[in-house]
Amino acid sequence: MEQREAAATGEPCMRVDAVAKATGRARYTDDYVMAGMCYARYVRSPIAHGYASKIDCTEAKALNGVLAVFTWEDVPEIPFATAGHAWTLDAGKRDVADRLLLTRHVRHYGDGVAIVVARDELTAEKAALLVKVEWEELPVITTPHAALAEDAVAIHPSGNTLKYSEIMAGDPVKVIADAEHQVSGHYQTPVIQHCHMEGVTSFAWMEEDARITIVSSTQIPHIVRRVVAQALDIAWSRIRVIKPYVGGGFGNKQDVLEEPMAAFLTLKLGGIPVKVMLSREECFTATRTRHAFTIDGQLGISRDGILKGYMLDVLSNTGAYASHGHSIAAAGGNKIPYLYPRIAFGYRATTCYTNLPSAGAMRGYGAPQVVFALEAMLDDAAAELGIDPVEIRLRNAAREGDLNPVNQKVILSAGLPECLIQGREIFEWDKRKEACQGQQGNLRRGVGVACFSYTSNTWPVGVEISGARLLLNQDGTINVQSGATEIGQGADTVFSQMVAETVGVLVSSVRVISTQDTDVTPFDPGAFASRQSYVAAPALRQAALQMREKILHHAALMLHQSAMNLTLNRGDVVLTERPNAPLLSVADIAMDAFYHPERGGQLSAEASVKTTTNPPAFGCTFVDLTVDVDLCKITINRILNMHDSGHILNPVLAEGQVHGGMGMGIGWSIFEEMIIDEKTGVVRNPNLLDYKMPTMLDLPELECGFVDTHEPQSAYGHKSLGEPPIIPVAAAIRNAVRMATGVAINTLPLTPKRLFSEFREAGLI
Amino acid sequence: MEQREAAATGEPCMRVDAVAKATGRARYTDDYVMAGMCYARYVRSPIAHGYASKIDCTEAKALNGVLAVFTWEDVPEIPFATAGHAWTLDAGKRDVADRLLLTRHVRHYGDGVAIVVARDELTAEKAALLVKVEWEELPVITTPHAALAEDAVAIHPSGNTLKYSEIMAGDPVKVIADAEHQVSGHYQTPVIQHCHMEGVTSFAWMEEDARITIVSSTQIPHIVRRVVAQALDIAWSRIRVIKPYVGGGFGNKQDVLEEPMAAFLTLKLGGIPVKVMLSREECFTATRTRHAFTIDGQLGISRDGILKGYMLDVLSNTGAYASHGHSIAAAGGNKIPYLYPRIAFGYRATTCYTNLPSAGAMRGYGAPQVVFALEAMLDDAAAELGIDPVEIRLRNAAREGDLNPVNQKVILSAGLPECLIQGREIFEWDKRKEACQGQQGNLRRGVGVACFSYTSNTWPVGVEISGARLLLNQDGTINVQSGATEIGQGADTVFSQMVAETVGVLVSSVRVISTQDTDVTPFDPGAFASRQSYVAAPALRQAALQMREKILHHAALMLHQSAMNLTLNRGDVVLTERPNAPLLSVADIAMDAFYHPERGGQLSAEASVKTTTNPPAFGCTFVDLTVDVDLCKITINRILNMHDSGHILNPVLAEGQVHGGMGMGIGWSIFEEMIIDEKTGVVRNPNLLDYKMPTMLDLPELECGFVDTHEPQSAYGHKSLGEPPIIPVAAAIRNAVRMATGVAINTLPLTPKRLFSEFREAGLI
Repeated sequence: MEQREAAATGEPCMRVDAVAKATGRARYTDDYVMAGMCYARYVRSPIAHGYASKIDCTEAKALNGVLAVFTWEDVPEIPFATAGHAWTLDAGKRDVADRLLLTRHVRHYGDGVAIVVARDELTAEKAALLVKVEWEELPVITTPHAALAEDAVAIHPSGNTLKYSEIMAGDPVKVIADAEHQVSGHYQTPVIQHCHMEGVTSFAWMEEDARITIVSSTQIPHIVRRVVAQALDIAWSRIRVIKPYVGGGFGNKQDVLEEPMAAFLTLKLGGIPVKVMLSREECFTATRTRHAFTIDGQLGISRDGILKGYMLDVLSNTGAYASHGHSIAAAGGNKIPYLYPRIAFGYRATTCYTNLPSAGAMRGYGAPQVVFALEAMLDDAAAELGIDPVEIRLRNAAREGDLNPVNQKVILSAGLPECLIQGREIFEWDKRKEACQGQQGNLRRGVGVACFSYTSNTWPVGVEISGARLLLNQDGTINVQSGATEIGQGADTVFSQMVAETVGVLVSSVRVISTQDTDVTPFDPGAFASRQSYVAAPALRQAALQMREKILHHAALMLHQSAMNLTLNRGDVVLTERPNAPLLSVADIAMDAFYHPERGGQLSAEASVKTTTNPPAFGCTFVDLTVDVDLCKITINRILNMHDSGHILNPVLAEGQVHGGMGMGIGWSIFEEMIIDEKTGVVRNPNLLDYKMPTMLDLPELECGFVDTHEPQSAYGHKSLGEPPIIPVAAAIRNAVRMATGVAINTLPLTPKRLFSEFREAGLI
Repeated sequence: MEQREAAATGEPCMRVDAVAKATGRARYTDDYVMAGMCYARYVRSPIAHGYASKIDCTEAKALNGVLAVFTWEDVPEIPFATAGHAWTLDAGKRDVADRLLLTRHVRHYGDGVAIVVARDELTAEKAALLVKVEWEELPVITTPHAALAEDAVAIHPSGNTLKYSEIMAGDPVKVIADAEHQVSGHYQTPVIQHCHMEGVTSFAWMEEDARITIVSSTQIPHIVRRVVAQALDIAWSRIRVIKPYVGGGFGNKQDVLEEPMAAFLTLKLGGIPVKVMLSREECFTATRTRHAFTIDGQLGISRDGILKGYMLDVLSNTGAYASHGHSIAAAGGNKIPYLYPRIAFGYRATTCYTNLPSAGAMRGYGAPQVVFALEAMLDDAAAELGIDPVEIRLRNAAREGDLNPVNQKVILSAGLPECLIQGREIFEWDKRKEACQGQQGNLRRGVGVACFSYTSNTWPVGVEISGARLLLNQDGTINVQSGATEIGQGADTVFSQMVAETVGVLVSSVRVISTQDTDVTPFDPGAFASRQSYVAAPALRQAALQMREKILHHAALMLHQSAMNLTLNRGDVVLTERPNAPLLSVADIAMDAFYHPERGGQLSAEASVKTTTNPPAFGCTFVDLTVDVDLCKITINRILNMHDSGHILNPVLAEGQVHGGMGMGIGWSIFEEMIIDEKTGVVRNPNLLDYKMPTMLDLPELECGFVDTHEPQSAYGHKSLGEPPIIPVAAAIRNAVRMATGVAINTLPLTPKRLFSEFREAGLI
């Protein structure tokens, strides 16, 4: 049977960028070159805290091919914030502006004190080594604990506490105390790095009278434009940002990284193109990481497993600069209350500066850490109460009609119970759990489950806005421009499906312009918060409805029909009552609209829409694993993620998204950790050899399933899916390890080293 | 006194691209490079007519660095047309498709038989010299006369006559015969070349699945997209054309030149970027030239100088390929009837193929040739009837309310009489003419005048469509996208003025995105026919009115006011009754629209408008010159152009436009000529040393004046100005030479060589 070409959401069509990427034709930032382009290389601090007391650039400047060396003395004294959040008119909600382009006061290993620009990369690197710096060391702070100590040296003039916030719903302290059963725990999560395949690269040149163009591998071109303008104190419209294809971001590129520096350098050098490209080592030490959280949790529950309330105290280590800073810790508290909503909820969070590399946004944005604590506590409660881990979650899981205890929003689609029920079946949970009873040998098997909730954008913390523009081509195809960015997640493909469905054409007739250009691309803050498909959808749909109407209107002129009688079916105009008898193709209509001497014109449509709804997605991970007690090694036998992300826009891409998140989740659970010397703050493994990121060979087969609910507030019934898959993985693994071994390990990652010390402490070995 | 910043049309603001161009930051096509870019070089025919009987590419292919050599056997057998006209749904009106990418049957000196692609330019050039071709010669035809001979060999299978057409209004034959006085003449104009500063350069690469991007120095990006798709038989939307700044086009780049070849090469080579850049020599021999016209004219006039009718028989030499072909000869006949409309009019035109380099569009598009003949005849009539040359033109010039004798359109603005009257004053015509009486010596002075009419676009011959899009930035500036192209004429500047005036902001707040990109730029066929400011204006104005309304609507929300009470004044929202008390700036409104949590959105506006009016511009040249009879040399003492182009959008730019046209007119009149061997068809002077283009040192001071009429059909009251300044120059000079010497020279250019033979024939020397 011939397969019908895709024409709507929900169909498993191929990625629109598959061929471009598979053939190597897709152009990434580093594929863009310019005549006369120069290269920059940082001079970085070998200490984690202190001052550069002297700097001597003479030798570096004298090297043949060196154009310039700039130090902290040459950069504007304009502190700027780098977090990729939409701007806000509320000054109190803005990100902390604590960064200069270069600094004399270095705050982490690898902080930038100077930068060299040379005609080629090697010369730049050589010259950077020739810059001589004398250092005056300050005490190095690596833990929030040390940062908050009374006599701690201040990393920033404002002190070491970046921010404190709390969320209270009901009276969690009393509710927990009054509950029949209490559980508590102390949880710790590691510093990890995103390890996107494509490194951090930006280059800039001046095109006209002080107008600067920046090509950058970023998730947030429109925000980059704003932040660069702020950092250099020039009008926002004088900055133009171009975002080519992006080889992964995972939140690291939701920060403004090297764009302000590239812009600064071209500005200082009369407009010549300057490329700032970081090495992998620099990506580890001088871009962003995931915040390490220390969480103290308490939970109150009835004997029959009805959760009464819980409370989390979070200490978040943001490292040397704020970046997303406290937003991450705060977000963790905002995303979780949807999960088990019929409770009293308490969440207190403090974010501190330390002398670690700066932490920023990373897939999950605080939720993986918080869910790890909550789902470990709940699992411990289940074990203590003798209730099946799936069953206890079913008793508390969000259901349609529940209210979020914090913001009182009603939950309109809640597929979590269905995820648990279907997942239990597919996974053969009961049979597998049965097999874990009464184990004694070296190899011990365990099953674990954990749930999560996650929101679909940043509303109401951030303004949510997206724009879409459609242009009909002469051959009946439609070009789509959206400010929402493709960074590998498949946004362009599902956008194409949305437009195809609403206009009434085939997906192959829709082409999303993947490269954003802030001069002309409709405004949208970019790819983060799993917001893209949710927030871009209403703008795309509104523009697509306009386009459909314009096409039908023009068809009506051509056919001497009322447009009321006409509709579009897979690229053809038909009479509503005879949908299978094409009257005109969209191409016929386009040609007439362009070239009829008098009627028509180019058909286009544009919409910019603000979103003020933010429904939660849900899901859970089931895992079956074997612990080799002697080797302290975990082997995953089976792992399954079940998701409720509303209507699934493209099952194949959704599966890919879940696989990626699960793999990342496994990495965070049992492999990855940036090893930072506690005393010196030196990063010991800033490379992909020593940093143990799982490869395909380290990962088990990844399984997933979807509960296809329909979210009524959503333009196409869908909810977030980008970040969720990573969230519940660690807790499920930790819970399975406890079932297998009886040892409840609350510190990630569960590496052999960690297992060894925990097993030893528990007397298991 | 402080100068107010410009905020409207009519104000003499600086070019918006002045700084970019003066600083060298403006990027032209050759400033774009790509990693791995390869270079192409043609193998060209040394004969003007014949066949390549054998070709041997072995040695070329063996050269290190050569990627490929393609010959006529490798190119698609899809004949395509290259003229830059908007497409038409009427198959009978389409341009002649007579060209392949490479050809075995070479039809002019420099025709392309093969092309080499190599890693660098030098290797490409070397390899091209290594391709061995054997030639079989055919008779070379260089004149229309020879082309039309009965036994002439057919240059194309369809024969040597490209097309014949005639326009008749009234009964010109009878009217001329019946008139009191007749004048006739035989006129000839030369082949010249545009000599734009920036050569012809295109490069292309494949970005995705068979999608080809082309960067090209072109006047007509949207047409290039269509023609390349037609030449390669792929969907139009699979071609993307980017037009950077352009260093002059003058009509040569209103042809599709090397873009199809660049696209073909990248397609054949798996998508690698390939640059095709022609040398100056190739621009002369293998791009386009101005058509040489041979015109036989008759004119009937009353004794008191009232023109009764005239008739022109035009033979146009289009060279080897059609390109714009007969459109040029036909256009000449369509643009002139507005000039002296109260007449019987006859115009018969034949366009022939010959073995000359192809002629195409060039500033004036047939009008300079036709006006040369008409204004020479009329001047001869004036002399014979003893009527002052200015006076005879005043008696016949178009006046408001006159009907065009051919299309019966009423002339609504006609500043020609005023141009003649004011020009006569400014130029001190009477005094100067007086000084020319009764001269006998070697140095003889003469004054001359000539008039023209020219239309403001191609309607109704072509569809006239233009699109504009406006985007409001956060800082209150407005980005403008228009498909109409800046090619040096100042389009971006006057577009900025139009938008500023209609929205109500300063010109400095408006930024036209100068680089067109057919994927996203609103549709407009491009820069030609002096159409840009006229045809783009209604789209810009419509979009600007929408933008103004959206800004005021949002201001009304912010101010709790009715939008009806508000207006915009130089970038501020004010109450209509208190225009000098700013309430909000456009930037305030933009920030709220972008970032208010709920209301607003990005403000944008778009319009695509078809134009179905085409008013004539008018004007005249006055010249005072001295002929050195012995040296056969002309020295211009004073030259003045007077123009009626309706409302002058920017006096400074308008002046620049006129100066450029006058300089080009002087070049065509007394300097420039491609010297082509009549027997062999070989171009003898294809370079800027041997081809005598006037430099600044060769030109007199150029003066101009404007009669500021208001054209009611125009969005801003303006009419065409781009091409007009060149049109009347040659006839005015020729007429002045006749006054000075008594010798009526009807063949251009009036070089010493030409004057020598004419003076000798006339017995003057």
